[in-house]
Amino acid sequence: MGLSKPLYDEISEAKKGTLNLITDVPGVTVGHTTIILDKIKTGVTAVMPQQDNLFLNKLPAAAHVINGFGKSTGLIQVNELGSLETPIVLTNTFSVGTAMNALVRYMLNQNKDIGDTTCTVNPVVMECNDGTISDIRAMAVKEEHVHEAIDAAGTDFAEGAVGAGTGMCCYDLKGGIGSASRQIVVDGKTFTLGALVLSNFGFLRDLEIFGCRIGAKLDAFDTTVKEIEKGSIIVVLATDLPLDHRQLTRICKRAGVGITRTGAFVGNGSGEIALAFSTANRIAHYSEKSLGTCTCISENKMDQLFRATVSVVEESVLSSLVHAETISDRHGDVRKSLFDRIQDMQKSKPDPEVAELLQRLGFLNFR
Amino acid sequence: MGLSKPLYDEISEAKKGTLNLITDVPGVTVGHTTIILDKIKTGVTAVMPQQDNLFLNKLPAAAHVINGFGKSTGLIQVNELGSLETPIVLTNTFSVGTAMNALVRYMLNQNKDIGDTTCTVNPVVMECNDGTISDIRAMAVKEEHVHEAIDAAGTDFAEGAVGAGTGMCCYDLKGGIGSASRQIVVDGKTFTLGALVLSNFGFLRDLEIFGCRIGAKLDAFDTTVKEIEKGSIIVVLATDLPLDHRQLTRICKRAGVGITRTGAFVGNGSGEIALAFSTANRIAHYSEKSLGTCTCISENKMDQLFRATVSVVEESVLSSLVHAETISDRHGDVRKSLFDRIQDMQKSKPDPEVAELLQRLGFLNFR
Amino acid sequence: MGLSKPLYDEISEAKKGTLNLITDVPGVTVGHTTIILDKIKTGVTAVMPQQDNLFLNKLPAAAHVINGFGKSTGLIQVNELGSLETPIVLTNTFSVGTAMNALVRYMLNQNKDIGDTTCTVNPVVMECNDGTISDIRAMAVKEEHVHEAIDAAGTDFAEGAVGAGTGMCCYDLKGGIGSASRQIVVDGKTFTLGALVLSNFGFLRDLEIFGCRIGAKLDAFDTTVKEIEKGSIIVVLATDLPLDHRQLTRICKRAGVGITRTGAFVGNGSGEIALAFSTANRIAHYSEKSLGTCTCISENKMDQLFRATVSVVEESVLSSLVHAETISDRHGDVRKSLFDRIQDMQKSKPDPEVAELLQRLGFLNFR
Amino acid sequence: MGLSKPLYDEISEAKKGTLNLITDVPGVTVGHTTIILDKIKTGVTAVMPQQDNLFLNKLPAAAHVINGFGKSTGLIQVNELGSLETPIVLTNTFSVGTAMNALVRYMLNQNKDIGDTTCTVNPVVMECNDGTISDIRAMAVKEEHVHEAIDAAGTDFAEGAVGAGTGMCCYDLKGGIGSASRQIVVDGKTFTLGALVLSNFGFLRDLEIFGCRIGAKLDAFDTTVKEIEKGSIIVVLATDLPLDHRQLTRICKRAGVGITRTGAFVGNGSGEIALAFSTANRIAHYSEKSLGTCTCISENKMDQLFRATVSVVEESVLSSLVHAETISDRHGDVRKSLFDRIQDMQKSKPDPEVAELLQRLGFLNFR
Repeated sequence: MGLSKPLYDEISEAKKGTLNLITDVPGVTVGHTTIILDKIKTGVTAVMPQQDNLFLNKLPAAAHVINGFGKSTGLIQVNELGSLETPIVLTNTFSVGTAMNALVRYMLNQNKDIGDTTCTVNPVVMECNDGTISDIRAMAVKEEHVHEAIDAAGTDFAEGAVGAGTGMCCYDLKGGIGSASRQIVVDGKTFTLGALVLSNFGFLRDLEIFGCRIGAKLDAFDTTVKEIEKGSIIVVLATDLPLDHRQLTRICKRAGVGITRTGAFVGNGSGEIALAFSTANRIAHYSEKSLGTCTCISENKMDQLFRATVSVVEESVLSSLVHAETISDRHGDVRKSLFDRIQDMQKSKPDPEVAELLQRLGFLNFR
Repeated sequence: MGLSKPLYDEISEAKKGTLNLITDVPGVTVGHTTIILDKIKTGVTAVMPQQDNLFLNKLPAAAHVINGFGKSTGLIQVNELGSLETPIVLTNTFSVGTAMNALVRYMLNQNKDIGDTTCTVNPVVMECNDGTISDIRAMAVKEEHVHEAIDAAGTDFAEGAVGAGTGMCCYDLKGGIGSASRQIVVDGKTFTLGALVLSNFGFLRDLEIFGCRIGAKLDAFDTTVKEIEKGSIIVVLATDLPLDHRQLTRICKRAGVGITRTGAFVGNGSGEIALAFSTANRIAHYSEKSLGTCTCISENKMDQLFRATVSVVEESVLSSLVHAETISDRHGDVRKSLFDRIQDMQKSKPDPEVAELLQRLGFLNFR
Repeated sequence: MGLSKPLYDEISEAKKGTLNLITDVPGVTVGHTTIILDKIKTGVTAVMPQQDNLFLNKLPAAAHVINGFGKSTGLIQVNELGSLETPIVLTNTFSVGTAMNALVRYMLNQNKDIGDTTCTVNPVVMECNDGTISDIRAMAVKEEHVHEAIDAAGTDFAEGAVGAGTGMCCYDLKGGIGSASRQIVVDGKTFTLGALVLSNFGFLRDLEIFGCRIGAKLDAFDTTVKEIEKGSIIVVLATDLPLDHRQLTRICKRAGVGITRTGAFVGNGSGEIALAFSTANRIAHYSEKSLGTCTCISENKMDQLFRATVSVVEESVLSSLVHAETISDRHGDVRKSLFDRIQDMQKSKPDPEVAELLQRLGFLNFR
Repeated sequence: MGLSKPLYDEISEAKKGTLNLITDVPGVTVGHTTIILDKIKTGVTAVMPQQDNLFLNKLPAAAHVINGFGKSTGLIQVNELGSLETPIVLTNTFSVGTAMNALVRYMLNQNKDIGDTTCTVNPVVMECNDGTISDIRAMAVKEEHVHEAIDAAGTDFAEGAVGAGTGMCCYDLKGGIGSASRQIVVDGKTFTLGALVLSNFGFLRDLEIFGCRIGAKLDAFDTTVKEIEKGSIIVVLATDLPLDHRQLTRICKRAGVGITRTGAFVGNGSGEIALAFSTANRIAHYSEKSLGTCTCISENKMDQLFRATVSVVEESVLSSLVHAETISDRHGDVRKSLFDRIQDMQKSKPDPEVAELLQRLGFLNFR
């Protein structure tokens, strides 16, 4: 479960969802495959945007490249056609090809018409580089790992160093998967905006949480951990609000604000990409009629959504840090979690501001 | 003068420039025309990118739209050709047309060939809406006001509620012009990155300074001031580093990070646009040879520059808040400065965190 | 009236509209102000997208920059918000500022709330450089010229060297305003796609019409006319089909195909910009409800629309050439029309392919 | 060998290169793997941009999406960093994943530092859907096919239905690989611009060659072939001119003009993507110095380059049609070449315009 309390979030001025996870958006599920094998600590996370046949009933979607030092695939077509027609697979940089193959095969099995009587399909695979922790050159992810993640998908799922997040680092601490959600009331109806991040960005000295420059403190305390930002963060946003492609693009851009609220500056080597989809207004692959109607939302409501996006992404990043546990990397060196780094410092050189921060982080179920 | 101390900035890990203004970049000057006349409180700010003939020797440049609720002109050509060939004029939204006319006339006077024996010229005018304070419907700016701002340009210039900043609001406080600079050492040589902002964005309750949620405190203390974000911020970045168009675009994107470091979330109605230029590698309008050489900088140095950009833009925003003074708006209501709002609160209901913040802001020559 | 026969167009496989003008789209009108005064041959063309209050009921819209050597304004906001809220004014490059002022004043008169109790307004002004023919440095267009064009707007309007097209050149021949329309049947209902171009691009030797390299022939016959491409073309597309912003963007991109079907290659100095709007699904400036419904059209119908766009833009360019008449430029030299150049050649050195072309162009009411 | 005569090209006003292939650009080679096996008719084409270590010495590059119904990978990073660091692999849509894997492994073998002591690598794979001819669902391409294509690379290479072009259709005729080149003289020095296309787009009835609407004629003659445009075209442009990222982007946009000169309109389902690189100004992955110098070219020379781009892409498309031979598809039906379709028609119903066209196409070594 995500960062579940308090129920009310000041930044977004919105209530959190029931699970405080992206899966609070009806129909969305998430599954992981975690691969730990000697020097290999990697995995796959699958976000299932809906439970029925996505190819036959696509979703409005948009992707936005915050910084393009990344190798994600499928975004060109998402932005041209404004639609998503496959699950979203997250994995490490050198497993994108295998994940594409697995996703294509999954879609072919489900749809006998693809590539035969109708067009092809556009697999969406997003990635970060977990090479600091894991032997990424081994290209260890196999197609079955992707299928396992898809099969494992459910509304409840683990955060931290699991799935695609297994080997990721964030602010030079252990990073990985984080998620959160917000409830948004429009015209008296309650909708949900959920986020899931794969966090792998940032220099420790830049980390700020709730205004506390905790990163600089940790960095000054233990200077033996050398910086290795080769970064990246993937943000997936889901909502049941009837946003169109242009509005989803605008939401994606605010994901960038959420990311940097924890202190980062979007480094040169950081591939930062956001993809958003709406579960309203499904788009039929086949349809007799060409004209139709769809629901829509006024641009005047956007500020409420932008606030929620910033907040839900910020919390997802924090949640990834809070849930990820200390791990040893491919050289046998220890990559400590945020909590363990703080504990080390507080034991030897207690700082009252940090003690207070730990308390304020309590709502995150911080261990 | 800008926010001048301390000389060393933690965020950017860089020294500040001599004046801590955009004019620390050699050849850059800034001039204001301030118009205060009954219900009209507006003006013009001109950034002169270099002192010689810009049309004959253009500058590498790039513009980036963070949020496009704005009416700036000239950016299409800046991004197609990667060059800037006129001064940059900042003013209010409904004075863009007049500022274009004034800028065209200025360029025509300087260059008898434009529109006769050679092509036309691309005037760059950027704007925010100062209609909360000033009677923007009066369209009070005249062409001579633009020429006066150009004529007034110098290396030393005022910040706060002056020039184009006269009627602007930022975080529902008095905003306006802010500026700062950083020194960047590359291969042993010292370069400068400078920023100038026209700040007019943000909801008070979101304002965070150095981790203190001062906006929420002020908002809770005095709830009589109603929110009116119809926002916008213009950022101009100048450097003598040899950045090309693509690299200048990347710099512009980090301006967005700097803006949101003070708590904002890039609102729907906020036109947020950044324009960056380099004074290295001038581009000849006429040249006998088509092939040439230019200086360039490795992408590996970008992180240093990105840090400096984030920091110099954040400081410019704070500087605009710190220098702007309380003003009465077109309805006779008072739009208080950050300092005056803080004073009001501290007198009646002192908050130790805010007292500490005031001290930390001391380096800004905070009144 | 536009190029009115044959009624059926092979390229687009669609019938032409009644007037074969952009005004075949219900509610769209066009007006001109033509200014001829000594060395000044310029003007203004206003496209009125609908007859009611556009600010209160905006239109879905999108703009696309084919080549950005241009100074059009208002496109940033059109693309961020996906909407158009003013008439579209076309004029010469150095009159954009004045046209913005005129358009702002027109909107302020119509809407007392703009800039007072609500936000500002985004004037859309598009331009080409008519400096070859007209003394563009004189900045001869006044605000009243813009208002006159708006007042003159009707469903029937002249093409060729009128309004903003007065001083424009296309393929080194006389160019200007051209327009055409196509009927598109979807689900048994008939819709219209209309185009209006301001043509000012291309080198004579590149002109191809219906596969005949007429430009190369004319160029070889009379080599005294020196080439002066400082180009540009503006394309306005209107439709009553329910296209959203993304789909309108895709339509705009096909305008580029239509332009180059007459032989041009999108020169460096050619500002080529397309703006498209839909009259379906008006967007309320004020509304009680935030959620609503709108009509939409399946992406599967796009090919039909893309064909029609290419064809209607190609015909609009040809129509501008066919309707524009020989004129003398600011130096007293003659800028001949396509027809007069052909006549000159055919009189002295008859070419059977050209004679055939003239016949094939007969449907254009070619003089 | 490409379309080799005449040596002088009217459209581009430039001489053709020695081989009239992309490999006329010094250092560029191309290799194919053709896979024909029962219902599978597919393959791989590798463009080797230079012969040394591309990761250590990257090339300036840019990609442009003309229409984004496509699944190419690597373009995000090419456009962010403005550089290309791997060979370019072309294949069918469902083999992109395998080609990525093969390319990653190729790069890992060549560079022991990638993913270990330095960052990852960005494989560029581009694709079209050959599912009309080939059983694309079989996912028949294996990693060794990619390595074979790389190993086979040389300056001379086949065009038509070979490599990635084996199963492609263009204008409902047999399409595939086409290539051409132009020589460009700047400041007295001779440079080369080369193109290679993978053609798989267009409806037969739209095909126009040299102004002859040959497609409509062929379509009317034999109406048994049903239309199946599920399109796409990939364009690779290479030059030894010192173009930077922005200028390469502008070149890519003109590839779109070249494509549509043969009659197409950029269909909804056509993934049309261009990627351009320059072999001048290599970009060191490791370098001691951060500042350097590079060669550059004035924007004033762009028209010459734009002309050449349009022409070289148009000729590459024609060359793919001319070199591709009749093939039977996965259903056993015959997909005829342009030549065979013309022969059929001329035997039964001779058309003098088509006879003339055949003669004019003679320079293409048309069989």
